[in-house]
Amino acid sequence: MSAPVDPGTLVPQLRAICGDDGVITDIAQRRTYESDGLTYHAAVPGVVVLPTTTAQVAEVVRLCAAHGVPFVPRGSGTGLSGGALPRPDGVLIVTSRMRRILEVDIAARCAVVEPGVINLDVTRAAAPHGYYYAPDPSSQQVCSVGGNVAENSGGAHCLKHGFTVNHVLGLEIVTPRGEIVELGGKASEAPGYDLIGAFIGSEGTLGIATKITVRLLRAPEKVRTLLAAFPGMDDGGRAVSAIIAAGVLPSAIEMMDALAIEAAEAAVRCGYPSGAGAVLIVELDGPAADVDAQFEEVAALCRAAGAFELRSASDPDERARIWKGRKSAFAAVGRISPAYIVQDGVVPRTALPEVLARIAELSARSGIRVANVFHAGDGNLHPLVLFDDSLPGAAERAAEVSGAILDLCIEHGGSITGEHGVGVDKACHMPEMFTPEDLETMAWLRAAFDPDGIANPEKLLPTPRLCGERPGVRTGVHPLVASGKAELF
Amino acid sequence: MSAPVDPGTLVPQLRAICGDDGVITDIAQRRTYESDGLTYHAAVPGVVVLPTTTAQVAEVVRLCAAHGVPFVPRGSGTGLSGGALPRPDGVLIVTSRMRRILEVDIAARCAVVEPGVINLDVTRAAAPHGYYYAPDPSSQQVCSVGGNVAENSGGAHCLKHGFTVNHVLGLEIVTPRGEIVELGGKASEAPGYDLIGAFIGSEGTLGIATKITVRLLRAPEKVRTLLAAFPGMDDGGRAVSAIIAAGVLPSAIEMMDALAIEAAEAAVRCGYPSGAGAVLIVELDGPAADVDAQFEEVAALCRAAGAFELRSASDPDERARIWKGRKSAFAAVGRISPAYIVQDGVVPRTALPEVLARIAELSARSGIRVANVFHAGDGNLHPLVLFDDSLPGAAERAAEVSGAILDLCIEHGGSITGEHGVGVDKACHMPEMFTPEDLETMAWLRAAFDPDGIANPEKLLPTPRLCGERPGVRTGVHPLVASGKAELF
Repeated sequence: MSAPVDPGTLVPQLRAICGDDGVITDIAQRRTYESDGLTYHAAVPGVVVLPTTTAQVAEVVRLCAAHGVPFVPRGSGTGLSGGALPRPDGVLIVTSRMRRILEVDIAARCAVVEPGVINLDVTRAAAPHGYYYAPDPSSQQVCSVGGNVAENSGGAHCLKHGFTVNHVLGLEIVTPRGEIVELGGKASEAPGYDLIGAFIGSEGTLGIATKITVRLLRAPEKVRTLLAAFPGMDDGGRAVSAIIAAGVLPSAIEMMDALAIEAAEAAVRCGYPSGAGAVLIVELDGPAADVDAQFEEVAALCRAAGAFELRSASDPDERARIWKGRKSAFAAVGRISPAYIVQDGVVPRTALPEVLARIAELSARSGIRVANVFHAGDGNLHPLVLFDDSLPGAAERAAEVSGAILDLCIEHGGSITGEHGVGVDKACHMPEMFTPEDLETMAWLRAAFDPDGIANPEKLLPTPRLCGERPGVRTGVHPLVASGKAELF
Repeated sequence: MSAPVDPGTLVPQLRAICGDDGVITDIAQRRTYESDGLTYHAAVPGVVVLPTTTAQVAEVVRLCAAHGVPFVPRGSGTGLSGGALPRPDGVLIVTSRMRRILEVDIAARCAVVEPGVINLDVTRAAAPHGYYYAPDPSSQQVCSVGGNVAENSGGAHCLKHGFTVNHVLGLEIVTPRGEIVELGGKASEAPGYDLIGAFIGSEGTLGIATKITVRLLRAPEKVRTLLAAFPGMDDGGRAVSAIIAAGVLPSAIEMMDALAIEAAEAAVRCGYPSGAGAVLIVELDGPAADVDAQFEEVAALCRAAGAFELRSASDPDERARIWKGRKSAFAAVGRISPAYIVQDGVVPRTALPEVLARIAELSARSGIRVANVFHAGDGNLHPLVLFDDSLPGAAERAAEVSGAILDLCIEHGGSITGEHGVGVDKACHMPEMFTPEDLETMAWLRAAFDPDGIANPEKLLPTPRLCGERPGVRTGVHPLVASGKAELF
């Protein structure tokens, strides 16, 4: 590798690889890629390429490697932690033209897709056969399977069905050296290191997935959804514990507090029971007999925990009505606050009541409103920290509260991200969760794949230069100002 | 690192770390560790240590690293691919004295155990609370959880419940540099690289697990077991396909052919229906209503595929009677053949009928008998290749047939091992399954963890020196002569 060159000098070679229409150099066009779902950070990419084949991706990466030019992979750009933030000194490799579903193999219960395929399109292709693809991030109508692999995306139903890592059987990847490597495949077990696990969630730092074999699940015979309204969050939290302790495994358990309900009501008139201090949405899927029996059990447990109103839905329209408030909640908060930060943290389920009480205290003490909308079943919090960005210092105070919530997660044995990833947003928080030995081990892995450090640099792992620039780690939290993209969350 | 020294010179320091009774130097005692379940290979370890704490393991590894002395980790020594084969120039680190169950946390549905804890003891500790640990290798009464982690062990019920990798939430490991690193934990999702996935199944080449947090599952409300007898293997194979295609997910689907049934009958009088060319054992677990409904469906599908006799069991004694023939099958083959090789390969489930037919052809053409006992549900074959070791050349001919079966697995998109691992036994077969780029990627990972190559060297990945010594890769297959250890399989 020679000294890094300006990525602009590679344009003729990039055009030879990807074709003229596969390389974007125009500044106005490049600017449309300046951020992903984490809009606070922005940078104009040096060059943008839109390859259509694995061979093109590998050639682009080899070219970057030969000239020491960094590259950043990007799917649909819906990520919430800035994993696809471009670099002026680098090449942005966009997979949106690799959008073919190569195979739907019902006998083997899997599909093989290119990385740019939209998440929901996998289910659409499998649905006529009675199958579906389980991971369902809220952005599933627009996010790409390749991006899901990079971020190990979850969704409301990952409580029962798991994350992307639980549904990928095989990958073809282009490593940062430009080699094409197969990981896993259709057979259930492969010898050697399970690099699929390490690759999924690696946020583009170990290379680019160019072909993805995903598991398809049989569509459940029955789905039932329960909405339960409680006087307070404590009551709802007790119901969650009781459901899990009873050995029931719903596909989703979602919780909203009074402020989130108020916002959803203002935005979409979801008509949740008035006077509720918390609502729980519990969804069950599976064989009909099973679902019906468990539904009665869940309803009884909610009543015992203090629910004052229960609603049940089993047809798609009724279910959509129950979900409407929850699905619109993030965007809805825009109705009651000019700006807000979406935090993403995890606590062990057993610590939920304690952590929720501490968040309420934090909010009361600071005078900053926090709305809670979250995946209660797996302890994945998404507190919305509200502030008025026209007031000086308000964003900083909100960032402080948001950071303190992360501290609470770590203190209780949880994690700094549940499903939004680390990206640029939380790289500086990694040392709060991991020891130097832990981080060193990750850095070895990264260097093993990417000796020259050209694959999505300065994402995921803390970079001393960047984290050191700040007076304290905590001030590195940046608010995600909800803008037009809020409906994607 | 200086030039490697004789491990014997480290004995005083090893005694200072592990205590006098934690270091074995006596040749007769060392010889008891000369092989694991793969008895064909044997070597006397230079020194054996039996640490009792993580700190001792880390100090032993750091001492080895400082002197360039290789180490080999060993659990209970029941592995079937020689992963724990010792080295005369190395230290054997045996975890059998690290046998404490540190925590059973029912609220968080997990247990924290030391690596030497016996697999079945985890379930014994959880059972009073109504929970169990799902991975159940046939050796579960003697094998260790640490060994299961090293080999990513499965078992008859991994069709529904998955392998060890699906049940480990967190690990404390000692890396080959002697650092103590935490991977994962009780919270559902951690940021950064998922090194748990890479570590599990790494066969001791990335370090030693010293603390393991495993997921506990709620014991199912009901378990029912069906024995179905078919005229031929084809009929049984069709039944397997029909069950899976119907969307039923039994916890186990096991299959035995006529030769395996004959052996089991001779050994334990299992009383399977006479005249059966194949038997299928299908087990269902879950909520009672669900299990009963699915049981009827499975029974109907078996009848439609040609089953001429069905037996049903739901209490533990009846179920044990059905399982008796299957569980004794490996040892039982000793009744009908003086020696045999246990092969372990995987094919996509859809390729089962074709591959079974090809194995029958192979057997007919070579005159070598092959008994089939296998995990049909996930395509994990365990062909038993029978031979008479008193006849010259018989072992070699059997090894050839056994090797040709692996070729069939690879040809059909399968794998060279389903659950027994690579170890020394199949390292030279890795290039048949992986490209040089695939293997290079694994080697990078290994080097990232173990720059000096001291962690279980010459296992898992092909070593040019060893594989090159042989005229052809295929002659590297070594028969596992079933001896007293057969009941462990």
